[in-house]
Amino acid sequence: MVYFYIMSQRTEVSSYGEFGLIHHLTKNIELQNASSILGVGDDAALIDHFGKQTVVTTDLLIEGVHFDLSYTPLKHLGYKSIVVNLSDVYAMNATPTQVTLSIGISNRLSVEALEDFYEGALAACTRYGVDLVGGDTSSSQKGFIISVTALGEVAPDKAVKRSTAGKGDLLCCSGDLGAAYLGLLFLEREKKIFLEHPGVQPDLENESYVIGRLLKPEARHDIITFFEQADILPTSLMDISDGLSSEILHICEKSGMGCLLYEEKLPIAEDTRQAAYKFQIDPTACALSGGEDYELLFTVRQEDYDKMKDSALVHIIGHITEAASGAHIITKGGQSHPITAQGWNALRN
Amino acid sequence: MVYFYIMSQRTEVSSYGEFGLIHHLTKNIELQNASSILGVGDDAALIDHFGKQTVVTTDLLIEGVHFDLSYTPLKHLGYKSIVVNLSDVYAMNATPTQVTLSIGISNRLSVEALEDFYEGALAACTRYGVDLVGGDTSSSQKGFIISVTALGEVAPDKAVKRSTAGKGDLLCCSGDLGAAYLGLLFLEREKKIFLEHPGVQPDLENESYVIGRLLKPEARHDIITFFEQADILPTSLMDISDGLSSEILHICEKSGMGCLLYEEKLPIAEDTRQAAYKFQIDPTACALSGGEDYELLFTVRQEDYDKMKDSALVHIIGHITEAASGAHIITKGGQSHPITAQGWNALRN
Repeated sequence: MVYFYIMSQRTEVSSYGEFGLIHHLTKNIELQNASSILGVGDDAALIDHFGKQTVVTTDLLIEGVHFDLSYTPLKHLGYKSIVVNLSDVYAMNATPTQVTLSIGISNRLSVEALEDFYEGALAACTRYGVDLVGGDTSSSQKGFIISVTALGEVAPDKAVKRSTAGKGDLLCCSGDLGAAYLGLLFLEREKKIFLEHPGVQPDLENESYVIGRLLKPEARHDIITFFEQADILPTSLMDISDGLSSEILHICEKSGMGCLLYEEKLPIAEDTRQAAYKFQIDPTACALSGGEDYELLFTVRQEDYDKMKDSALVHIIGHITEAASGAHIITKGGQSHPITAQGWNALRN
Repeated sequence: MVYFYIMSQRTEVSSYGEFGLIHHLTKNIELQNASSILGVGDDAALIDHFGKQTVVTTDLLIEGVHFDLSYTPLKHLGYKSIVVNLSDVYAMNATPTQVTLSIGISNRLSVEALEDFYEGALAACTRYGVDLVGGDTSSSQKGFIISVTALGEVAPDKAVKRSTAGKGDLLCCSGDLGAAYLGLLFLEREKKIFLEHPGVQPDLENESYVIGRLLKPEARHDIITFFEQADILPTSLMDISDGLSSEILHICEKSGMGCLLYEEKLPIAEDTRQAAYKFQIDPTACALSGGEDYELLFTVRQEDYDKMKDSALVHIIGHITEAASGAHIITKGGQSHPITAQGWNALRN
C-alpha cells in the first residue's frame, strides 16, 4: 500500500553519535558467505573469493534526484538501494557476495526512519545472499544520500562485458519493460494532488504492479542461474537501468556493431499498457525510454537459440548487425526508425 | 599557496550529459595493476587478486560537513578523497590496488572544477599505484558529494585487525599528530576574515606545514613496507582519522584491553606546537583529539622492540594493559588521567 509519509515515533540521530548509530543499525548482521572473512567494525572488510575474480560496482542515490521521500517508504528505499547494485553484478554474469552501505543523513530523518531503511537493506541482503560488510555514516546538510558498493565473484572467463556482441547474435531481454516509469508518473501525479489537498491519501491499488516495479525492484539472479543451467554464455550482457534504447546503443557502440529491434517483440505487461493508456502515452515509448526496469539485456549466439526458445524468462527482441547498418527499430507497421537514446539521465536536473 | 576560490573559465556540466562527462573525466586512465582486469565503462569492474584476500573500505565526503570549498582547492580535495580511503587499506596491513569514485555535483561546479578534482584524484592513484576502475556520476541538489571505495589485497593471515592487541604489547604510532586540526583552525579563522573583508587574500605561508597536513594528507604506505622489511606483524593496527584518543579506545575496547599512554612520548611537530601556541591551546590536546592525521596506530609484541627501535618512522607511545586497569594517559607531570574520546564526529553537525 502506497502512502504519503507521516511522522510517528521519533528518536533523534544525535542521541547516538556516529559509532553508536552504526552499531545500533548493524548489530544484528550475521555474515552468510564463507567469502566474508571480516565484516563491519574495522578499518576495512576482508574478503576471500577463493580463486574467483572479484566484480565491483557502485551507485550513488541522492534525495530529490533519484528518489522522493514523500512517496518512497524508507524500507523500500533500503531494499532498492541494495538491489540496483546487485543488478550491476548480475549484469557481469557474476554472483553478488558483499555490499558496503554508506549514508549521509540530514536531521530530518529519525533513528526510526533509519531503522526502516536498514531493515529494507538487510532484507535485500538476505534475499540475495549477500553480506553487508562495511560502510560509512555521516551527516548531510541537505537530503538523504546513499552510496552502495557491491562486490561479487565470477569464475575466470565467465564474466560477460558489453563490448563483445557479434554479428548475427540474438538480442534478448528478461522480464517486461516500461512499468517503473509509469509507476513514477502515477506517484508524481498523486503527489501533486496530495500537496494541493493535504490529508487526501491516494488510491493507487489498481496501479500496484507498475508502482511496485518502481519502488521495490528485484535483480534478475534467476537469469544468471538460467544461463548456467542452460549452459549459455551470453556474448554481451548489461542491465537496463536507463532505458532499453540507451542500453542497446551502449552494446552496439562498445561492440562496434548495429542492430535491428522489433517493436512487436518488446515485452510489455498488460498492467503497463493499461497504465500508459491512462496517461495517453505509447507503451512502446515507455518500454524504450522508461528507466529503472533492472531487467537484463544480452546477446547470445544463434546456435544457442534452442537452449532458450522454451524459457519464459527471456525474450528475443532483435538481432545484432554490422555497424554500418546502424541501430534501428522495426515498428509494428513495418517501418524502420533509428534508435535514439532518450533514457533517464541523472545529470538532467 | 592557499587561496580563496575565484571562478575563472567555466563550462557547464550540462553541456556533456552523464556518459559524456564520465568519458571526459576518465578517458586518460591507464590501468597499472595486473589485478585490474576490467576498468571504467561496463556495469562493474573486474578484479583478480590471484590468491590474495581482498580488502574493501568506503568513505563518504560531503561538502559543508567534511570539506569547505572556499579554502579547499579541488585538486587537493580529489587527492585527499582517494588518500583517506587508501589509509584504511594500509590500516589492515594491506596494499591498495583499486578505487571507485562516485560524485554528486551541484550546478555550482563547472567542468573545469571537476577536471581539477579528477586531476588530483588520479595523481593520488598514480602516487599510490592504484587503478580507478569505476564509479557513478550524478547531480546533487545541494553541495558536492564524494563517495570512494578502495580495494586492496593482502596475503591470507597477514591482515591485521583492531581487536587483537595483547597485554604488554607496545603501543605505537607513525609520523606526528595534531597538525591537521590546527590547519583547520587557521583556515576557518582566515575564512571569517575573508568574508568580512572580501578581496583580502590570507597570508598563511608560515603555516604551510599544518595546512598542508589538512589539505593534502598522505597515507602511510611506507609503514606497511617497513613492517614487511623488518618482519613485524603488528598485533593490532588502525589509522588515526578521528583523533588518537578515540582510536586508542577503539583498540582497547575491541581487544578487551586497557592501556597506558605517555604524554611525553606523543610525536608533535615543532610547527604544530607553534601553531597551537598561537591559538593558545595545548599541543597535547591537539595530538589527542584533533582528527584527520591519517597516521597509523598499532601495537607490537615486546619481542619486536629491537626490530623497531632504530626506525625514525615509528614512535612507541605507551603499552597495552589489562582491561581492568582502564585506558589512561600519564602526563608530563606524572599524573594519570582516563583517556576520553573527544574525536571529530561526523554526526556532530
